[in-house]
Amino acid sequence: MSDKAAPTVAQKGLQNIVVGQSKLSLVNGTEGKLIYAGYKIEDLAEHATFEEVIFLLWNLRLPHKDELETLRRQLAVQMHLSPELISIMKRLPVKATPMAVLRTVVSALSLWDPDADVNTPDENKRKARQLTAKVPTIVAAWERIRNGKAPIDPNPDLTLAANFLYMLKGEMPNEKEVAVMDAYLVLLSEHGMNASTFSARVTTSTLSDMYSAITTAIGTLKGAAHGGANEEAMRMFFEIGSANKVEKWFEDNVKTGKKRVMGMGHRVYKALDPRAAVLNKKAKEMAEATGNMQWYDLASKLEQTARADEDFIKKNLYANVDYYSAIALYTIGIPMDQFTPLFAIARIPGWSAHVIEQWADNRLIRPDVDYVGPMDLPWVPIEKR
Amino acid sequence: MSDKAAPTVAQKGLQNIVVGQSKLSLVNGTEGKLIYAGYKIEDLAEHATFEEVIFLLWNLRLPHKDELETLRRQLAVQMHLSPELISIMKRLPVKATPMAVLRTVVSALSLWDPDADVNTPDENKRKARQLTAKVPTIVAAWERIRNGKAPIDPNPDLTLAANFLYMLKGEMPNEKEVAVMDAYLVLLSEHGMNASTFSARVTTSTLSDMYSAITTAIGTLKGAAHGGANEEAMRMFFEIGSANKVEKWFEDNVKTGKKRVMGMGHRVYKALDPRAAVLNKKAKEMAEATGNMQWYDLASKLEQTARADEDFIKKNLYANVDYYSAIALYTIGIPMDQFTPLFAIARIPGWSAHVIEQWADNRLIRPDVDYVGPMDLPWVPIEKR
Repeated sequence: MSDKAAPTVAQKGLQNIVVGQSKLSLVNGTEGKLIYAGYKIEDLAEHATFEEVIFLLWNLRLPHKDELETLRRQLAVQMHLSPELISIMKRLPVKATPMAVLRTVVSALSLWDPDADVNTPDENKRKARQLTAKVPTIVAAWERIRNGKAPIDPNPDLTLAANFLYMLKGEMPNEKEVAVMDAYLVLLSEHGMNASTFSARVTTSTLSDMYSAITTAIGTLKGAAHGGANEEAMRMFFEIGSANKVEKWFEDNVKTGKKRVMGMGHRVYKALDPRAAVLNKKAKEMAEATGNMQWYDLASKLEQTARADEDFIKKNLYANVDYYSAIALYTIGIPMDQFTPLFAIARIPGWSAHVIEQWADNRLIRPDVDYVGPMDLPWVPIEKR
Repeated sequence: MSDKAAPTVAQKGLQNIVVGQSKLSLVNGTEGKLIYAGYKIEDLAEHATFEEVIFLLWNLRLPHKDELETLRRQLAVQMHLSPELISIMKRLPVKATPMAVLRTVVSALSLWDPDADVNTPDENKRKARQLTAKVPTIVAAWERIRNGKAPIDPNPDLTLAANFLYMLKGEMPNEKEVAVMDAYLVLLSEHGMNASTFSARVTTSTLSDMYSAITTAIGTLKGAAHGGANEEAMRMFFEIGSANKVEKWFEDNVKTGKKRVMGMGHRVYKALDPRAAVLNKKAKEMAEATGNMQWYDLASKLEQTARADEDFIKKNLYANVDYYSAIALYTIGIPMDQFTPLFAIARIPGWSAHVIEQWADNRLIRPDVDYVGPMDLPWVPIEKR
């Protein structure tokens, strides 16, 4: 097409506009199907560690044993934070939103990288590894700092999932907790051209650097209509309080149009989000293991209530990934306002893979806009207005 | 259209895709015309101060005298940086890229704002004023800090343009310098759905906050194909050295396809960028006033050489805003790697106006992508790969 082709007026929010090609993932919203580079999400959640999925997203194939071990070691040596960065984190106000802190500290990371603006494939892969390794440490360190505790050094012998829980709580997590964390990280690590990924690609398209792109993605994920939704879901569960109050809450709030069921409905999925199905199972297992069924039972009851409602049936509103992830994360002791930073930990490999894909075949992402204001007004000096 | 409408495959980079409506500016690339909320850029550059244009972008009309004075005072009281923020800036490595520092410090600003996540129209306007007032102070403070000098407190009696030069250099700027700075800030403050503005709107579309959106925009502007181009243009002028070397440099580098003329050509303008015309005049006036014609003469000669070339004629490659702004800024003593931060200073009012416009009629910006990888690969355990 020539530059002067007639413009296409897109549906609002770029719905149904295909912005390009990707080899990273398929999101089939009609069938409720999610595939990472060929592999069904159900298989990956059941069999793969987060590290294996990271390799898959960065190499478009599963690793051999030695390759996985190499990646594990490359990540392990990058997990620590410099004393300079920790010292800055200690000067940040403890009441700040964790996602805003994460956005700031990830942006700051670049300042100590002498090759921050070298955008070769090798440098981009190095930065992707660095961010994947350091972001869990940043999130855990901030949780400790804001509670007046000293950050805990990463343990290079642990997996990313185990290490995060260890640094967060200061004690070795048990196997069940690590398994839930690993499944969560696998399930959330990539998801097509969602808003945060797309924003990272727009930033990259100006030839800006990996740190800028990931900082953008974190800021975009932060919104309540994206990554912030898992925290909103948990707040809703708290507001309801217990399973026996679900029906009345639903009648009083949802049926009257006052509130939405947070964590149900999705721009793409018009069937059950396959990640929600896995996380439902994981949340139930964790609830049973800890003996605290209160929140799982509430969530389960609310899902059934909503799915029996004709509006939810007609509009294809199903539980999405945020719904049961809130319960799973809360049950393994993640503070509610760290849910979205944890989403970011999971998504760094996917974001960085998209940034690398964008660099491989880039064109400035610069759409048009329809100007609907006045034209050619005459200038009037301020005294005569 | 229903959610299940057939997808539209967009041209790469979303070229010619209209993403929505805006009352902020019209960019007519065929005629080389730029209008802010009804007013021609030539009129604004000649008659309006930056503050007047800020009012225009935020209110879609020009201010009365008392309204302009109110805005001026609102900005003046917001110009200072807190000791906490300055103390963090002093801990950043002096060799860091100024745009990466700006991205980080703007992101950090939100951490001290107790209403950072309150996204009402009034709060968004307050944040827009705060960012417009503080970003010049941040840029000037960083220039001093990285050179081992103490930051200079803003002078609340000065205009934004004069104050920036005062804080940067530590002495009162002369009238000519202030006039050039004011014209530059007016000319660069808004420009339709460019990549940084669009990325800020994508971030906003998830219901993320103003600080996240502006941090995104700064990271996107940073790229060499966007705001970074004015610095690239100046580097090219240095590489050439003087007007009498232009023709040989053009033959050896551009005609052979080795290099592009930085600051010529634009995604939208297929005629002369109207901002370039004004900045050409301003750059010439400054060069004459300072008696240093070397860089203006070089740029002028290179523009003539390129515009006489058949490839440039055929492809409609004209000087864009970055071309003469590089000369104008260099001549008033702005360090080369502060050109893009200065672009950010100018664009904060436009970005924030777009963020406010997005909030007023929001829908999650979430396009589709065409998955071109394999499907339904069977899981193979690591030992069997």
